[in-house]
Amino acid sequence: MKKNAKEEIVKAAITLFKSNGYSGTSIRDIAGLAKVNTATIAYHFENKPGLLEYCFTNFFEQYISKMEEAYASIDKGAKNCLKRMVVDLLHYQCENSKLASLVYREMSMDSQVVREIMSTYLLKEKYYFQLVFERGFEWNEFRPHSIPYLIIQLKGLLMMPFMNTHYMREVLYVFPNEPFFEQKYLKDINLWIDKTLCSDVPMKMGAVIK
Amino acid sequence: MKKNAKEEIVKAAITLFKSNGYSGTSIRDIAGLAKVNTATIAYHFENKPGLLEYCFTNFFEQYISKMEEAYASIDKGAKNCLKRMVVDLLHYQCENSKLASLVYREMSMDSQVVREIMSTYLLKEKYYFQLVFERGFEWNEFRPHSIPYLIIQLKGLLMMPFMNTHYMREVLYVFPNEPFFEQKYLKDINLWIDKTLCSDVPMKMGAVIK
Repeated sequence: MKKNAKEEIVKAAITLFKSNGYSGTSIRDIAGLAKVNTATIAYHFENKPGLLEYCFTNFFEQYISKMEEAYASIDKGAKNCLKRMVVDLLHYQCENSKLASLVYREMSMDSQVVREIMSTYLLKEKYYFQLVFERGFEWNEFRPHSIPYLIIQLKGLLMMPFMNTHYMREVLYVFPNEPFFEQKYLKDINLWIDKTLCSDVPMKMGAVIK
Repeated sequence: MKKNAKEEIVKAAITLFKSNGYSGTSIRDIAGLAKVNTATIAYHFENKPGLLEYCFTNFFEQYISKMEEAYASIDKGAKNCLKRMVVDLLHYQCENSKLASLVYREMSMDSQVVREIMSTYLLKEKYYFQLVFERGFEWNEFRPHSIPYLIIQLKGLLMMPFMNTHYMREVLYVFPNEPFFEQKYLKDINLWIDKTLCSDVPMKMGAVIK
């Protein structure tokens, strides 16, 4: 058994799940691409759902820890903190664009593993966004607005390039794995924060102007 | 053969492709749900790729005609025209939320039919967005910006609720098929148009103030 077999299996699974979909990929296909036998996959991941769960967990463990780290800077202001989150999450997705693509696509299916991911990682993600938005309202940095609707918009902007990689390449000629993309698109999301989230903030009664 | 068999087959296919994915659905499953035999499906759609192509074509024919209709109002201004497009496209997606969800998910796969849809309908979609943005720059209504990057943002906002229906329901408790959602979310996209697209428009040299 090769020492890095586990890594090779994960790499092959990400590639195949990404291009053929989870349902369209067999354990045999993965074994073939990773150049291992199916028993090695069974040893490390039990079965195909086990491999998908590993991909999800691997992706969201790091994703949530980026959010936690960024949230630690909340005392420097909610807008600063949100911008730091956006930098880190966009960078993380760009660095792991294949994994991000397949995770986001498979999250749209209704399955046991998806429900588990939602009730753990995605609730945590919502919790951190919520904390930042609430601080932003409280500190008069953000225009008061429905938090779920803000999350829809921000996640829409963050996820779009990774949910539609073929469209990005073939129709728009934009390549999300190039550094140029990350810098340019970051400015666009920051503009959303500055212009739609932070403009026209009503002055609170008795608010202290800092 | 039932008179409305074709309709029943399409309805069943949309439901199953949506919840189990295209690869996770068999012609037998569809026949079972539509209460027809597999020969009837073969008669109308030849095979499973034929059924998926029908779903795509059905969705994008109407989608593009909404864009064409909205573009006819370009003489009333680029911002007005874009807002009309957004109203119509959001409404169309809300009315066909199951179909929109499955089409958007399957568009993320790399297949022959997806490439064909991209080189026809999605190029047309890009063409209309491009026309509106170019008029908006020319008429000093929109802040000059990269058109592909504007399309990424606008499509991200428009598609997000339909690409992540389980997440919307289970995590955010937002229901994209309710009329309340459509009205509320429309305001958010309009805010993006007003605040990030139409603010800080530099005055052109020699521009005529209307």
